[in-house]
Amino acid sequence: MSQNASVGIVTPQKIPFEMPLVLENGKTLPRFDLMIETYGELNTEKNNAVLICHALSGNHHVAGKHSAEDKYTGWWDNMVGPGKPIDTERFFVVGLNNLGGCDGSSGPLSINPETGKEYGADFPVVTVKDWVKSQAALADYLGIKQWAAIVGGSLGGMQALQWTISYPERVRHALVIASAPKLSTQNIAFNDVARQAILTDPDFNEGHYRSRNTVPARGLRIARMMGHITYLAEDGLGKKFGRDLRSNGYQYGFGVEFEVESYLRYQGDKFVGRFDANTYLLMTKALDYFDPAADFGDSLTRALQNVKAKFFVASFSTDWRFSPTRSKELVKALIAAHKPVQYIEVKSNHGHDAFLMEDEAYMRAVAAYMNNVDKDCRS
Amino acid sequence: MSQNASVGIVTPQKIPFEMPLVLENGKTLPRFDLMIETYGELNTEKNNAVLICHALSGNHHVAGKHSAEDKYTGWWDNMVGPGKPIDTERFFVVGLNNLGGCDGSSGPLSINPETGKEYGADFPVVTVKDWVKSQAALADYLGIKQWAAIVGGSLGGMQALQWTISYPERVRHALVIASAPKLSTQNIAFNDVARQAILTDPDFNEGHYRSRNTVPARGLRIARMMGHITYLAEDGLGKKFGRDLRSNGYQYGFGVEFEVESYLRYQGDKFVGRFDANTYLLMTKALDYFDPAADFGDSLTRALQNVKAKFFVASFSTDWRFSPTRSKELVKALIAAHKPVQYIEVKSNHGHDAFLMEDEAYMRAVAAYMNNVDKDCRS
Repeated sequence: MSQNASVGIVTPQKIPFEMPLVLENGKTLPRFDLMIETYGELNTEKNNAVLICHALSGNHHVAGKHSAEDKYTGWWDNMVGPGKPIDTERFFVVGLNNLGGCDGSSGPLSINPETGKEYGADFPVVTVKDWVKSQAALADYLGIKQWAAIVGGSLGGMQALQWTISYPERVRHALVIASAPKLSTQNIAFNDVARQAILTDPDFNEGHYRSRNTVPARGLRIARMMGHITYLAEDGLGKKFGRDLRSNGYQYGFGVEFEVESYLRYQGDKFVGRFDANTYLLMTKALDYFDPAADFGDSLTRALQNVKAKFFVASFSTDWRFSPTRSKELVKALIAAHKPVQYIEVKSNHGHDAFLMEDEAYMRAVAAYMNNVDKDCRS
Repeated sequence: MSQNASVGIVTPQKIPFEMPLVLENGKTLPRFDLMIETYGELNTEKNNAVLICHALSGNHHVAGKHSAEDKYTGWWDNMVGPGKPIDTERFFVVGLNNLGGCDGSSGPLSINPETGKEYGADFPVVTVKDWVKSQAALADYLGIKQWAAIVGGSLGGMQALQWTISYPERVRHALVIASAPKLSTQNIAFNDVARQAILTDPDFNEGHYRSRNTVPARGLRIARMMGHITYLAEDGLGKKFGRDLRSNGYQYGFGVEFEVESYLRYQGDKFVGRFDANTYLLMTKALDYFDPAADFGDSLTRALQNVKAKFFVASFSTDWRFSPTRSKELVKALIAAHKPVQYIEVKSNHGHDAFLMEDEAYMRAVAAYMNNVDKDCRS
């Protein structure tokens, strides 16, 4: 399906919200910005809008390129575009960078209006609920009373799910992909090690590294390398790299030696160049805290009682960070709450990252579901 | 079975080997020490000796205590002792610290006889083959022509397996537990991240941290925390900690918050106090390099062709670092090579660490196998 046309050259917009946002932790953001991109046209009924929520390291740049010279497209270009599963010829698609992000929305890199200086470590801890609240303000701004669909993978899927609980009247369909109704203990443990790598980096300077002209590059790099392993599956890793060496024979030292080491270090280094360490900390905490059942006596079914959206849930066979079992917990709770849900477990050897990748069965399932979403818009 | 008596107070011995050891990497150790402990009595036929090989962070202190005040016993006290599965009333059991270790055998903390200073980062990279070679020298020293059994879990199992290939005449039984015939790509990737955490710690000082009065504590701590997650299974972690918090409600900060975080950080800190970072690097490299099939055209079956030992192979259902699939690769190759093998997959929710834990089915299986080993000694 990637043969289909792209949305082409797109331009992000920074939307200022001159209004306070009360956060779940009790603090208030006096004002905030959201960086967004939109693709396709909002119809006159304003009922064909689709919100794309990003995962840990994503942003507003979902599809297309920012200039003709751009080497890379947006992070979900295979999913969003004309004739693609989320078809921009039929839907008005909105991508945004979440609060706390480092790609233009208010976050650690923004100016704190109360001090006139960058927030850095002072940017408050935000939650999935906070994001959804800010996204509701964005929907108001765009004149969208109800989303045709909210779509997200991983942490993005958590936002789609939270939307259906926080604003049941404002979501017709939720597509929750490679996600979970809350993190497992192991997930939290991995996040904590990643955070510890950053927090104990001597260049972290309690989060005020930019004002001291340092970057906790070592910590962020280790966090990303470890994270990257957990996003992939042995099936895929083994097929791609096996035990291949960079040169002939063992080196009996600690330099780069196996191909998989070279790959991982490259991923770590690349990430350090584009991502902010404070944002990484914030994103992992939002993941850890997400637990919509907690407000309902630990019953996900009860949490879903007032939901009006229909659900599409997808998982990937070799995803061990957000395994199919976790998606099925959501599916079972939806069924117990008598909510409509379609579920697909996609065979893949790409682990958690499969949700970002081209796979025919997966793409077809999303396309088919989005056809129904489209029909709903027209009925 | 832990009700059985302990081996009691034991005293380690440092055995000096005033002979050169040529290593796989071409370098030579001019001399070396091995720190050992022994339990039970070597019989007059000298055919009841059992060698215990340790894993990444183990050592010679397998069973008993070093003094009556000792809070902890050796690392496999539930397995080795009078009346225990490896019964010290019948077997002469030998534990050792491997070369490159940090508990008394020649390693980064030892004096380099060529410089009169600590080796530190100059201690050569050693392999499983090198260890087996040094253990053969130890067997010679002890007057043991043939081990009744060689037993090891994880990296220890790799040594038991290598023994059967390097010295087929010198091993009657190999017990290879929670191990693999080589690391997976994912295993290597995790090891590389652990090494990178240590190598990029500014206090690492290219491995000469002790002479500069620093300790790469941050890196070693992160390595251990990450490793620890991979030794456990979500089943056990979830049951033990779930999403339990240290205090009421979320703290919206980056301090310790979930119980699992507290546990992991404690494990990391404790490890830093007892283990040497250079040794950690060496042990992970020995793991990465182990691949006995490589010398035989990548055929494990061919690698096992001349083996004379009988095998006991055990794996644990939730071990995802050295999964049952990996043990079965060895079992299949043994069967293809027409070698006798008994295999058990133990149900456990303790992941890789299960090999160190009390479990009745597991203990009984080892005890039953060791009974046969004992009969072999008497026949």
